Amino acid sequence: MATMNDVARLAGVSASTVSYALTGVRPVSEATRERVRVAMDQLGYRPNALARGLASNRTRILALLFPAIERGLGGTALEFVTAAAETAREHGCHLVLWPTGDDEVGETHELVHQGLVDGLVVMEVKLDDPRVDLLRSTATPFTLIGRTARPDGLPYCDIDFELTVRGALDHLSGLGHEHIALLSHSEASLAAGYGPTVRVQKAFEQQTSERGLPALVRHCDESADAGRAVAADLFRTHPEVTALVTMNDDATFGAVAEIVEGGRDVPGEVSVLSVVSSPRVGALSHPRLTTMAAPGAELGRLGVESVITRVEQGDSPVVRELIPCRLDAQATTGPAPGTHAHTPPGTP
Amino acid sequence: MATMNDVARLAGVSASTVSYALTGVRPVSEATRERVRVAMDQLGYRPNALARGLASNRTRILALLFPAIERGLGGTALEFVTAAAETAREHGCHLVLWPTGDDEVGETHELVHQGLVDGLVVMEVKLDDPRVDLLRSTATPFTLIGRTARPDGLPYCDIDFELTVRGALDHLSGLGHEHIALLSHSEASLAAGYGPTVRVQKAFEQQTSERGLPALVRHCDESADAGRAVAADLFRTHPEVTALVTMNDDATFGAVAEIVEGGRDVPGEVSVLSVVSSPRVGALSHPRLTTMAAPGAELGRLGVESVITRVEQGDSPVVRELIPCRLDAQATTGPAPGTHAHTPPGTP
Repeated sequence: MATMNDVARLAGVSASTVSYALTGVRPVSEATRERVRVAMDQLGYRPNALARGLASNRTRILALLFPAIERGLGGTALEFVTAAAETAREHGCHLVLWPTGDDEVGETHELVHQGLVDGLVVMEVKLDDPRVDLLRSTATPFTLIGRTARPDGLPYCDIDFELTVRGALDHLSGLGHEHIALLSHSEASLAAGYGPTVRVQKAFEQQTSERGLPALVRHCDESADAGRAVAADLFRTHPEVTALVTMNDDATFGAVAEIVEGGRDVPGEVSVLSVVSSPRVGALSHPRLTTMAAPGAELGRLGVESVITRVEQGDSPVVRELIPCRLDAQATTGPAPGTHAHTPPGTP
Repeated sequence: MATMNDVARLAGVSASTVSYALTGVRPVSEATRERVRVAMDQLGYRPNALARGLASNRTRILALLFPAIERGLGGTALEFVTAAAETAREHGCHLVLWPTGDDEVGETHELVHQGLVDGLVVMEVKLDDPRVDLLRSTATPFTLIGRTARPDGLPYCDIDFELTVRGALDHLSGLGHEHIALLSHSEASLAAGYGPTVRVQKAFEQQTSERGLPALVRHCDESADAGRAVAADLFRTHPEVTALVTMNDDATFGAVAEIVEGGRDVPGEVSVLSVVSSPRVGALSHPRLTTMAAPGAELGRLGVESVITRVEQGDSPVVRELIPCRLDAQATTGPAPGTHAHTPPGTP
């Protein structure tokens, strides 16, 4: 392994000059700095962040921890990551995406104890999340995107699922729909206690009941084919349904295809409203999907700012923020069959 | 900043016991190790990877370097990242995603000299890519996914765009199509020298010319709306076109919607074949898209294996591999209007 002395020898300068060139502690001419840089490159010498990290206990690197990369970084997650990376950069930090595999607790433990990062943003939080228990017991600042069942005292920002479901039902009720089904994420995500799946279902059941409407909920794997199958079964067993609230992007595309191919007009006979989605994803559908857009960019910005504040001021107040999805009314929602059109609340 | 001595004091053990517990150099009882772990957690002491990295010059972390996170990690890139992360894990390494902003060269330079990573996988390679010039001059092992205009001596794996275009044209020619247009990525990506955009266009122009067919190429921004606009203009000015080869997922959805809404049947009057895509993306379309699937998983695995081999054996032979996309014939390609159906070559 090359040492700083090797670099100094190759560059034809003293070791302290190398150190000054790296740390900026004393001025060094641009030409000398360039010679040092070339020598470092040739020798593969890589000292700074490690050494600086040891000396200052700061690396200016934040990790975005997320399991289940298989689910992808489409729509929402993508806006989220983009905004998070930008926010980190504005604060002179770098955000890295840290995928974890089956042993997510072990990998989180390793990450925290490696000392590579100043703080963590945790995605895909479950109601009962062992990663959060682990992080509670360490000194590394973190913020959750999502929240556990009892997030008291934890810093988090999340989607306001109750308000989101309220917005969806207001939009559809305003259009005269009385038989509204929810097409949600998979049974597996419910069983795993994935926050959005549990919270949206609970809000949907509560709010349809308050409105005196039946609460029809279907779970669906995260694929277009699964969406086709679930929609086919739903309309066979419940032909009275005139509106679908969906939260499952890939499945929504399959469901719309199945409804149209099954001879039902969208939105003439069936309205479809996709929540926790985005206008970009909606534009891929034909007819263009009415969506309620997840506040990905806001959550990314809030999450990173919260962590950086906690890195810099250990005792800063804890962020807790809920933001609802925003309605983008497009071509897949319309008046319920046999009703006269109202102006739905929430339409711009 | 907490020191190893602070940890030792809090845990009630000697500093060398802390060191043994961390390094495994001498056996330490499970109970002692647990006391050390708890003390480290309480004090926020984070020594190992940094210290180990300095001592061994190995961190077992690989970075996947990619600019332009805005473009997302849909279809292809996602399979790629998943396979790359899995492969790293199988080798006892961790893959982090390292997004870069506008100053991609500066950020790459910083990453290499921070000493945080053992090696790099570089995505979104341009024909003339200053990041590659930088990396050529350093000792950090890397592999390109994609390749520059003159990749002699560089380790890379990439899509075989010539064979991919040949497969697409064989499929469509076999169905009797003689007026085939290419709907590609944006002018901006062409101007930036983005490899796939340049190489697919060149192969398309060469191979249509060899077959005595006109070469109609349209560039299109990466959105469904842009796809609609470009398709509308294309069929207004070139109503003789009966087949589209597309390489631009979001735009393809818009183009199909525009063609159908414009009164042309797909595939009765216009066939659409999306290359460098995936069956998962194809399933979101209605009718289901015929795609040529990018070898994302293979490239992810090859890229990481190549870097790890170079990290472990500095003088290992350089990997250079090209893999074509695979045809998945679905519902958007069919016989050209007025021709009798042949069995298209390449159909499973």
